[in-house]
Amino acid sequence: MYRVFGDGLSGNCYKIRLLMTFLDIRHEWVHVDILAGASHSDEFKRMNPNTRVPVVQLPDGHFLWESNAILNYLAEGTAFLPSDRYLRAQVLQWQFFEQYSHEPYIATARYINKYLGLPKEREEEYRAKQPGGRKALALMDDHLEEQLFFVGAIPTIADISLYAYTHVAGEGGFDLSNYPNILKWCRQIEQLPGYVGMGRL
Amino acid sequence: MYRVFGDGLSGNCYKIRLLMTFLDIRHEWVHVDILAGASHSDEFKRMNPNTRVPVVQLPDGHFLWESNAILNYLAEGTAFLPSDRYLRAQVLQWQFFEQYSHEPYIATARYINKYLGLPKEREEEYRAKQPGGRKALALMDDHLEEQLFFVGAIPTIADISLYAYTHVAGEGGFDLSNYPNILKWCRQIEQLPGYVGMGRL
Repeated sequence: MYRVFGDGLSGNCYKIRLLMTFLDIRHEWVHVDILAGASHSDEFKRMNPNTRVPVVQLPDGHFLWESNAILNYLAEGTAFLPSDRYLRAQVLQWQFFEQYSHEPYIATARYINKYLGLPKEREEEYRAKQPGGRKALALMDDHLEEQLFFVGAIPTIADISLYAYTHVAGEGGFDLSNYPNILKWCRQIEQLPGYVGMGRL
Repeated sequence: MYRVFGDGLSGNCYKIRLLMTFLDIRHEWVHVDILAGASHSDEFKRMNPNTRVPVVQLPDGHFLWESNAILNYLAEGTAFLPSDRYLRAQVLQWQFFEQYSHEPYIATARYINKYLGLPKEREEEYRAKQPGGRKALALMDDHLEEQLFFVGAIPTIADISLYAYTHVAGEGGFDLSNYPNILKWCRQIEQLPGYVGMGRL
């Protein structure tokens, strides 16, 4: 059985949970309290020296980290990862976009606001995250003007990667009502069989 | 024929050039002057709305962006991308590590120092990039204590992704002599047939 080391507060962990429920993959969830620093213990570092959740332990005992790498592993051979070479590369294109141009703005602003309570000493950083987050959301909204999902005609792990922090972007100060195509796309994801919401387990 | 829209100053573009020379893939290089803002033109945005290099135009006319997605596309079916499911996922793990935990520190510090001349107003940001960059390099050095390349026994696109900005990390203020396994690994990459150095074309 798969073991997932993660925290329900983290959108990166939620990606794994969402794909696993969509694909009905049995797994054990091992809670790692990131606010309490549990991903920095020596025990955790033996699984992932980069001290970040999620980490997945495969049924054969091997470990894998980086949420989007894990999604690619789990989705192989399913409808969530196309077999066509160009479509697969587009899935990765959007996943790398998510990690470089989306998550550092939207997830970090949300973390500062929701979990740290927007302390005075991080207000400037919080404000500095807003333009980058808005740029990412506007680009996504434009892309979804033409299509229902990010790559091809059906949902893929590119959608799961982007959905995780986008649907809670309001908690980072981003007003999703400015992005009608994103809202429509969120509703599509939420109607898929097996959908579960985000939150501590 | 492939067309690569890029700037030789960018390590992300260099990744593509390096894999293409290793694989002997014929291509036309179209220079995009990023310091002059050429990736923000309307024409460029039609190729990549995220205004970043590199962009590759495939022989059939389609566009693909995000350096690591492009590497995966080009390496499919070659020795630079394993066919084993777990090894492939590990390649992605290291590529996502590179984009999230390495490039934002090391490449940005290098950019501020080498291309902007370390202006006074960015000195604080430059200094703030150093601990994250050192953490990434230490983690890589530890990993290379046990193996010659990042995934499996032979070079993959994970090595190309990490090599691009690591071998010039000194230009961002990181002293590579502190990381002997990284230096040894760099020499291995530089001895591969087809190796070319970084720089403006």
